[in-house]
Amino acid sequence: MADKIPYKTYLTEEEMPTQWYNMRADMKTKPAPLLNPANGKPMTAEELSAVFCEELVKQELDNDTAYIDIPQEILDFYKMYRPSPLVRAYCLEKALDTPAKIYYKFEGNNTSGSHKLNSAIAQAYYAKKQGLKGVTTETGAGQWGTALSMACAYLGLDCKVFMVKVSYEQKPFRREVMRTYGASVTPSPSELTEVGRKILAEHPGTTGSLGCAISEAVETAVKSDGYRYVLGSVLNQVLLHQSIIGLEAHAAFKKLGVKPDVIIGCAGGGSNLGGLISPFMGEKLRGEADYRIIAVEPASCPSLTRGKYAYDFCDTGKVCPLSKMYTLGSGFIPSANHAGGLRYHGMSSTLSQLYDDKLMEAISVEQTSVFAAAQQFARVEGILPAPESSHAIRAAINEALRCKQTGEEETILFGLTGTGYFDMVAYQKFNDGTMTDYIPSDEELAASFATLPKIG
Amino acid sequence: MADKIPYKTYLTEEEMPTQWYNMRADMKTKPAPLLNPANGKPMTAEELSAVFCEELVKQELDNDTAYIDIPQEILDFYKMYRPSPLVRAYCLEKALDTPAKIYYKFEGNNTSGSHKLNSAIAQAYYAKKQGLKGVTTETGAGQWGTALSMACAYLGLDCKVFMVKVSYEQKPFRREVMRTYGASVTPSPSELTEVGRKILAEHPGTTGSLGCAISEAVETAVKSDGYRYVLGSVLNQVLLHQSIIGLEAHAAFKKLGVKPDVIIGCAGGGSNLGGLISPFMGEKLRGEADYRIIAVEPASCPSLTRGKYAYDFCDTGKVCPLSKMYTLGSGFIPSANHAGGLRYHGMSSTLSQLYDDKLMEAISVEQTSVFAAAQQFARVEGILPAPESSHAIRAAINEALRCKQTGEEETILFGLTGTGYFDMVAYQKFNDGTMTDYIPSDEELAASFATLPKIG
Repeated sequence: MADKIPYKTYLTEEEMPTQWYNMRADMKTKPAPLLNPANGKPMTAEELSAVFCEELVKQELDNDTAYIDIPQEILDFYKMYRPSPLVRAYCLEKALDTPAKIYYKFEGNNTSGSHKLNSAIAQAYYAKKQGLKGVTTETGAGQWGTALSMACAYLGLDCKVFMVKVSYEQKPFRREVMRTYGASVTPSPSELTEVGRKILAEHPGTTGSLGCAISEAVETAVKSDGYRYVLGSVLNQVLLHQSIIGLEAHAAFKKLGVKPDVIIGCAGGGSNLGGLISPFMGEKLRGEADYRIIAVEPASCPSLTRGKYAYDFCDTGKVCPLSKMYTLGSGFIPSANHAGGLRYHGMSSTLSQLYDDKLMEAISVEQTSVFAAAQQFARVEGILPAPESSHAIRAAINEALRCKQTGEEETILFGLTGTGYFDMVAYQKFNDGTMTDYIPSDEELAASFATLPKIG
Repeated sequence: MADKIPYKTYLTEEEMPTQWYNMRADMKTKPAPLLNPANGKPMTAEELSAVFCEELVKQELDNDTAYIDIPQEILDFYKMYRPSPLVRAYCLEKALDTPAKIYYKFEGNNTSGSHKLNSAIAQAYYAKKQGLKGVTTETGAGQWGTALSMACAYLGLDCKVFMVKVSYEQKPFRREVMRTYGASVTPSPSELTEVGRKILAEHPGTTGSLGCAISEAVETAVKSDGYRYVLGSVLNQVLLHQSIIGLEAHAAFKKLGVKPDVIIGCAGGGSNLGGLISPFMGEKLRGEADYRIIAVEPASCPSLTRGKYAYDFCDTGKVCPLSKMYTLGSGFIPSANHAGGLRYHGMSSTLSQLYDDKLMEAISVEQTSVFAAAQQFARVEGILPAPESSHAIRAAINEALRCKQTGEEETILFGLTGTGYFDMVAYQKFNDGTMTDYIPSDEELAASFATLPKIG
């Protein structure tokens, strides 16, 4: 290779960031506050503290502090699997015959198989610090539940996971990883909660939903002494913790003397994208640099590209506060897209505001083209990517092919959020040629927009 | 942390070894040669070349050259996933409250999930260089087949994998990973080969065996124009390629100014153990340093600890040359231990000679104690280990607990060969408390020793 850039750039442990960066501090228009659905007023810290840990409530509501110290215990945990590598995709560039320079920040090098661990350890740490016994959460595809189980095992904290019943049954291996880390995993809906019993009575054959699992996890936290509820995406606090991804990438680029032109991330609730872009968006907000920033979502669940910017429920069970965001309506039922982590009707309110302010772009892609990109990437770069991450790969390849046509030597960065070891059912469908695409019709979206609450 | 040693030590790409190290060059007693079962005479290069690539035959027979250059194309591929980290297990040390310092060399950070890729890319490269169309192989648990599929996808080489039928059916996800990398995966026995058809006619309901899959892969290679057979363990060439593991660990220790006292690896065919210990054993053979070196095998398949040092068939189908090794007899049928990669009746002839010369120790451990160690490790160190690797973890924990009793501050290195994402059926059994142990009786071993050939 003529180029001196190494395949993989690692920061040393001394070079690792010691503070998270809070984009909201540099936003002229702050994200809209969470509202109490009972009275339409902004949620207070006290109200939020019944469900969330105190320190996390503080982080959730803090729109002003730009840098927040990462506690030493969390830094120590980060060192078990971080820094993650910034990889130059030499082999992909060669395969595409593009003048573009492609980099990816790889977050799959830990047992949870994704970036989710960055926030899981932070949330578990603050729960432990508050003297709690444990935390509750829901999980769909299972990455978040796995990450939280790992963090709780490390800190000796109890972890109760409500897993959407259909996933519990179809992904027994995901479930066993969580159990190996000592978590209790309950298929949702369950007999353990009031809301679960009610749903089971009304719909005895239901295979569950994320909305129902959230409701059960929240109820369990509120009713159990010494427990709080934690969530793996959407919230401001999660984007804050995930800023470690972008901060490391930013520092590694600086070390290499390289500046990216385009930054690409997949977007479900926004945890990965918000984390990856944080320091770059900060420069953009402060007028210090400019970047094209692209959110990539599934065509089957297009909240940014086809949603409305409005107040909506974060969960289908409607037990959580209202959030202003790009949403398809909490009644929207996404088709069986294999990127479970991107099947969310809404979007982080911070990212929604940035998108509304035209500070980032958004595109949607269909899943067969996503798996084609995943396969191409796997064969030349070695890593088997998660379906979610592969949305970013699809967009990065498209950008690189554009550069090939125009001859531009742009530098592209994308987030490779995780690995696909537990997604082989989806890969098998692609390998067999039986995978299909789905794009919701305008009528379908209009019907789900009708479920939006009349607030805000 | 008071200690200055980082959690993870990575060599830079410039510091990566550029030569493999061949232990045989420094052995006073060389490993015994492979014999032709037809006439009992040492296999010639010409005879071996009908089955194996020419350059690999040369490496197989070379007992004299200590250092062999790694071709640039292989170095480039290594840079996609290497150097692998040398990890200081601070969290495990703390959990055990031991004065011992524990390190592990982690080889699971690539999609094949194990160290197997180190030799797969080398074998595929030499096949490509010889102008071949493709390679054939067998796979049981699936790590080797996955690694070979990845290497062949990268080089544009055809890859035909015969997968033991019971694994093909029970591990559909492993199969799909290989298919994603473009390999054809055939359940063995199959209708594609003479030996397969014969076995199917005789035993219509058979679920296959590794011995049968080897026979089918060898037959396919020999009968197909432009194909050769490749193997993931046991052979001298494999240990040579795997020396990259030990060479990196050795260089990283040098960088840290640390010298290990005890080196521990799991042992099935010997590929990981032989690679990990290579440079350390080299120092020992040359009288430059001393180390305790420990091979760990399953109590259910104890070739070193309870086997005979004798000439035997490498495969149960008896189509391969005879090798002098510690063996339980090629007729030995291991119990359904979950560490599929360690269920081999024999052992690398190089390691067998070193063991016979008392240059290394061997112990056997039972699988429930192995999974207990795996779970403990996963909970504090984050990584979910493969069952095979967990044999080394068990032994390392035992050594660290010994140090706790004696107060010795020994430095322990073990090989963490891979991850357990595709082994959740085994973890589930452990989590449910339904896992059992099995130790073959003396009578059982005597019966299988009776299958040893009367040669050598």
